[in-house]
Amino acid sequence: MTQTTATSVQTSEAQPKVVRKSPLHDFLAPESIAIVGASADPTKRGYKAMVGLIKGHYAGRIYPINPKVPEILGVPTFPSLDDIPGPVDLALICTPAATLPGLMAECGRKGVKGAVILAAGFRETGPEGAKLEQQILDAARAGGVRIIGPNTSGMFNLHQRVNLLDLSNVKAGDIGFISQSGNMLLSLVLEAEHNGHVGFSTYVGPGNQTDIGFNDYLRYLGEDPNTRVATLYVEGFRDGQRFLQAAREITPVKPVVVYKSGATELGKKAASSHTGALAGSYAMTVDLLKQVGVSVVHHSDEILPVAEGLALMQKANGKRVAVIADGGGQATITSDRLSEAGLELAELSEATRKRLASILFAQASLANPVDVAGTSDANPEVLSQCMEIVAEDDSVDAVFLVGMFGGYHTRFAESLLGGEMRAAEAMIELAKRIDKPLLIYSLYAPVKPPALRRLHEAGVPVYASIEYAVKVLQALGERGLYLRNQHGRPLQEGVAPSEDMQAMFARANNEGRDLYEFEAKTLLRTHGIAVAEERIAHHADELGEIAAAFGGLPLAMKVVSRDILHKSDAGGVKLNLVGEAALRTAYDQIMTSCRAYDANADIRGVLVTPMAKKGTEIIVGVVRDPIFGPVLMFGLGGIFVEILEDVAFRAIPLSREDARGMVEQIKGRKILDGVRGEPPVDREALVDLLLKVSGIVSAYPQLSELDLNPVIAYPDGYAVVDARIITNRSVL
Amino acid sequence: MTQTTATSVQTSEAQPKVVRKSPLHDFLAPESIAIVGASADPTKRGYKAMVGLIKGHYAGRIYPINPKVPEILGVPTFPSLDDIPGPVDLALICTPAATLPGLMAECGRKGVKGAVILAAGFRETGPEGAKLEQQILDAARAGGVRIIGPNTSGMFNLHQRVNLLDLSNVKAGDIGFISQSGNMLLSLVLEAEHNGHVGFSTYVGPGNQTDIGFNDYLRYLGEDPNTRVATLYVEGFRDGQRFLQAAREITPVKPVVVYKSGATELGKKAASSHTGALAGSYAMTVDLLKQVGVSVVHHSDEILPVAEGLALMQKANGKRVAVIADGGGQATITSDRLSEAGLELAELSEATRKRLASILFAQASLANPVDVAGTSDANPEVLSQCMEIVAEDDSVDAVFLVGMFGGYHTRFAESLLGGEMRAAEAMIELAKRIDKPLLIYSLYAPVKPPALRRLHEAGVPVYASIEYAVKVLQALGERGLYLRNQHGRPLQEGVAPSEDMQAMFARANNEGRDLYEFEAKTLLRTHGIAVAEERIAHHADELGEIAAAFGGLPLAMKVVSRDILHKSDAGGVKLNLVGEAALRTAYDQIMTSCRAYDANADIRGVLVTPMAKKGTEIIVGVVRDPIFGPVLMFGLGGIFVEILEDVAFRAIPLSREDARGMVEQIKGRKILDGVRGEPPVDREALVDLLLKVSGIVSAYPQLSELDLNPVIAYPDGYAVVDARIITNRSVL
Repeated sequence: MTQTTATSVQTSEAQPKVVRKSPLHDFLAPESIAIVGASADPTKRGYKAMVGLIKGHYAGRIYPINPKVPEILGVPTFPSLDDIPGPVDLALICTPAATLPGLMAECGRKGVKGAVILAAGFRETGPEGAKLEQQILDAARAGGVRIIGPNTSGMFNLHQRVNLLDLSNVKAGDIGFISQSGNMLLSLVLEAEHNGHVGFSTYVGPGNQTDIGFNDYLRYLGEDPNTRVATLYVEGFRDGQRFLQAAREITPVKPVVVYKSGATELGKKAASSHTGALAGSYAMTVDLLKQVGVSVVHHSDEILPVAEGLALMQKANGKRVAVIADGGGQATITSDRLSEAGLELAELSEATRKRLASILFAQASLANPVDVAGTSDANPEVLSQCMEIVAEDDSVDAVFLVGMFGGYHTRFAESLLGGEMRAAEAMIELAKRIDKPLLIYSLYAPVKPPALRRLHEAGVPVYASIEYAVKVLQALGERGLYLRNQHGRPLQEGVAPSEDMQAMFARANNEGRDLYEFEAKTLLRTHGIAVAEERIAHHADELGEIAAAFGGLPLAMKVVSRDILHKSDAGGVKLNLVGEAALRTAYDQIMTSCRAYDANADIRGVLVTPMAKKGTEIIVGVVRDPIFGPVLMFGLGGIFVEILEDVAFRAIPLSREDARGMVEQIKGRKILDGVRGEPPVDREALVDLLLKVSGIVSAYPQLSELDLNPVIAYPDGYAVVDARIITNRSVL
Repeated sequence: MTQTTATSVQTSEAQPKVVRKSPLHDFLAPESIAIVGASADPTKRGYKAMVGLIKGHYAGRIYPINPKVPEILGVPTFPSLDDIPGPVDLALICTPAATLPGLMAECGRKGVKGAVILAAGFRETGPEGAKLEQQILDAARAGGVRIIGPNTSGMFNLHQRVNLLDLSNVKAGDIGFISQSGNMLLSLVLEAEHNGHVGFSTYVGPGNQTDIGFNDYLRYLGEDPNTRVATLYVEGFRDGQRFLQAAREITPVKPVVVYKSGATELGKKAASSHTGALAGSYAMTVDLLKQVGVSVVHHSDEILPVAEGLALMQKANGKRVAVIADGGGQATITSDRLSEAGLELAELSEATRKRLASILFAQASLANPVDVAGTSDANPEVLSQCMEIVAEDDSVDAVFLVGMFGGYHTRFAESLLGGEMRAAEAMIELAKRIDKPLLIYSLYAPVKPPALRRLHEAGVPVYASIEYAVKVLQALGERGLYLRNQHGRPLQEGVAPSEDMQAMFARANNEGRDLYEFEAKTLLRTHGIAVAEERIAHHADELGEIAAAFGGLPLAMKVVSRDILHKSDAGGVKLNLVGEAALRTAYDQIMTSCRAYDANADIRGVLVTPMAKKGTEIIVGVVRDPIFGPVLMFGLGGIFVEILEDVAFRAIPLSREDARGMVEQIKGRKILDGVRGEPPVDREALVDLLLKVSGIVSAYPQLSELDLNPVIAYPDGYAVVDARIITNRSVL
């Protein structure tokens, strides 16, 4: 069962050295396994697990627990865990939910390091189940036992010959897989059996993640020398912030692939009835995962090809792909898909074109995509020659052959088989020599002809779909760029909290309120953020002096009151006021309206500020997400956020590269370049603003939420016009 | 080679009767075939075509033309077409481009009905090739010969045993395929051989479409009784307007599937070097194809599953899908994909839930997606029972089983095979009895276990991908809704052109100019479109009377001149004018600015109109597309069109349903519902506007382009504020 696959020829780098720090090694590579609820009934999990271990040639000790039969599959049973003579690293528990609290205590007494709990009937079923789940967690913690599950499909570690699933025909290989769906594992295993390039290392079903979460499993896979790519099917994270931290550390040394389900409201509802996981905003989750270098796939069909592609080839240095085609149709389709994936057609050098011209028919197209236009029909070796020529061009980051390679001897003449095999060998040699990914799409891939089988065995990936091959190219290119930008990438500089501002938060907290708008702006100003100039009038009598101070500029006036959140609705905002008389009238109107709106409102006066110069409205926000912690949001004002939900998210803290990425990512970014002849806004100033806001959030845990709406962006800077800060009253 | 597949059990309707009007039947089902350039060299097309015909048991006469050898594959040759004793329906021409003009004349003399021209080297290579292409077209027309190609991959008609391609293992079946890529045919054939449900009827490569275009082939497939679904791979249409007309007629009786390449700029560039086709805007093409009931697929991998799904099941009555799952993960993924595809999870009735509860475990989820939660592990038949129960619910339009069906006996116990086979039979019976599509996704599909093989043979489709199964459901649902809306669907009422307006166009034409803005508005007003009230002042002296007429409303003033297109740039627009004095000042300023802008401008005065009330800006436009003819465009004003390209297109004429679809389709449609507490706009008034504009365009061929920008939409109607009409000077 544990046949290993050929090692990739496409990555020369040695597996990076990692220190084993994860406690999961102790029981995911166990030396002894107890099976609680072992059974002689072949339809039961307690029997199948034994079959999996015995057929898989597990080298450690197996202890079936069953008080009723003396042996199962020739292995002597024990009446209980306590009766086992030696130590037990891992316990597989096949008994129902109600038995679990007692069993956890027993595991603790026995010194079991990890327990795999198959039973469902916990949090995912409602409050009663959640209570039971907490009980088993408490019992396990008391005894020092770690829990996989409950509600897990099980686990395997094929390189250690541990297979608790009785899955046959699973090849041992490079893919570590953590999946909240057991069917998804089965699906990948069957797909890999028929079309896969690499096998699997460790699988775990994290189930309800009661104790061990995705972050722990990710660290384990990061440290596991047998895993070349960590792959996760996630319905919901429980501790997203820790997961992001783990990914930040692991993605620089090993690719991480995540498929997150619950992309839509319908999907979220279905997921929550499955694992009881709370699925957060899909768009936010995707942004944050990409921020820490994760390769996110959006369709379940993409999981295996992308994971395999990354296992085999690790990365491309960039997004410039050279395409060699033997037919115009597939060249066209490939161009469309590359473009949609954000990849580019490499601009081939003059020297490269000349070299191509010297071996191709006159009617061949030498611009990328290179269309050999029949040259290969009688000489398939010209394809490997073309691949070599473009691979040697510095402007090329990856080479993609599309068409009917492998099928020439079927389509044209049997005598072409020799040429096809020689071409395959040349491609394998090229893959070894050149540090660039080589991928092949062939419409003959389903037929598995000899040349494609040879490439496949040698670890040069062959795809039956242009679409999925391009997804692989995209993941390779994005990973390469991430690694390049990541290199030495500093996170934002820290912001030192000021004593005055700490005192201001304490005051608000004592008064049981959030920050006033002017306080929020003071905080921003203190840390170097450009806020529109403003003055507070506590009485109408101060308005004359204020009018004079702003020297005749049209002014805006807003009520200051902790009790009035929606100032416009309360009649608490007046605009375009010129001169003291206008200010006084506005003041009286605001006081009258606001008292009518809320007779008991604590009104502290009004804020007076010059009307903002015209510019481009943007919005900057911070939320503390229950799963991912503090998250920064950026978007354009108005309909872009409200109607189109065109916003970018990043977890705090972020790097300058992250902040730039936020500004580049939004669909409305053209607005920032200036429309209708307006000059472009100062993007670097916005990047600074984002970094400063992020720094403030890190420095002040008292700040819970922040909303700068709008900020007006100008060709030379920006101004924060309105600011709202919600305090975190549990932090002093 | 021509083994036929099992007929679908899922469509009870008889193949609709069609009258054979297309001239293509004469040579796409030929009784005699000449092969010009027939060869004894097995690598040559002139040999392969003979093999294809002989191995395919072609029943008609074969005439190889070759002056050098006496026979090829045992068939006597002829020195030239003229030497053939009997009539020739079809000539396959394998000789190079330069021989074609002479050969076309020869074909004409011989009375050949159709010629398949393989040679490339025409329009796609540049002006010289285009000239040669025109020569062969002229020669063919003179002789009454129709041309397939040139630059074609060839054709087959398997039900007539005509195969000019020597493709082995192609099953005769329901899919008619017209493809500008020969590799794409090969790819579908190989895919169908390994995983396909139905085979192929007629294939044609239209190549450069010099004579016969996609519209002609579509009509032929529409009339062909052996074709149940017409499928097209299109790099570029040559006569899009005729294609839309053909599709309008055929889609009500037969599904039409189109994959259009060139979705991106990179793809368009690649396509143009392949077939020399001009690829228009992808978004426009997709909108227009959907308007006429075509099922558009966006990825080449979707072509075969969608074509097969439509061939087997024709349609669903709506978009409400019931999902039966044996695992939560796949239920979640399915929900996500259904939602993204615009499909819905059917709301199951109370009675249905009760029936489900009576056969499922207590922990099963009875809401859609139905998760049997282990009930099927020991009893797979419960799955067919669930399918039957939900299929009988009136709220369900299609049933989708997802999970591991077919693999239960592998995964759990060999003894379950009997139950799986019984379940498969029950599903087949259900498919026959219920007029709703039944689809199955199984992760065991790649293994082809017995139950899935049985379903497959019986025409109940089994998929190895949730993603593609959902694309099939989407196509079925969209087709069902199209047919429902299409039923008796009237196109817009005609607009009778007015004599005055004809005279107005004639005047503009005589003066060699487009319409003035006030003329354009007069045309709109004449045909019942709401245009903002306005007056023209030819002299400043008329302004007093005009100011009085509008009774103190704030007014806008715009210059009237055929020479000033961009009025704002010329200083030709003044806003918010109140009172005669303000009007006089503005008039003088406009005259001064516009004369400074263009001293020779022919200025006819100014247009005065009340400032528009605030509302929602929309844009309505008409272009005469070089491929598709007159096309109506609708979008929201400002950034929606300019930055987001969020617009809807429909070919003129359109139906009320089409106009409603335009308004519903745009991403910014929420704006029309009213944002920030504003009332929704009057959508039906916008629909009327779109229909009236379309009617005007049909009535006045003198109108070339129209641009209403902006139109202001209100809760009770709309007003056209600015209108520009470009005249078609070639029409009097």
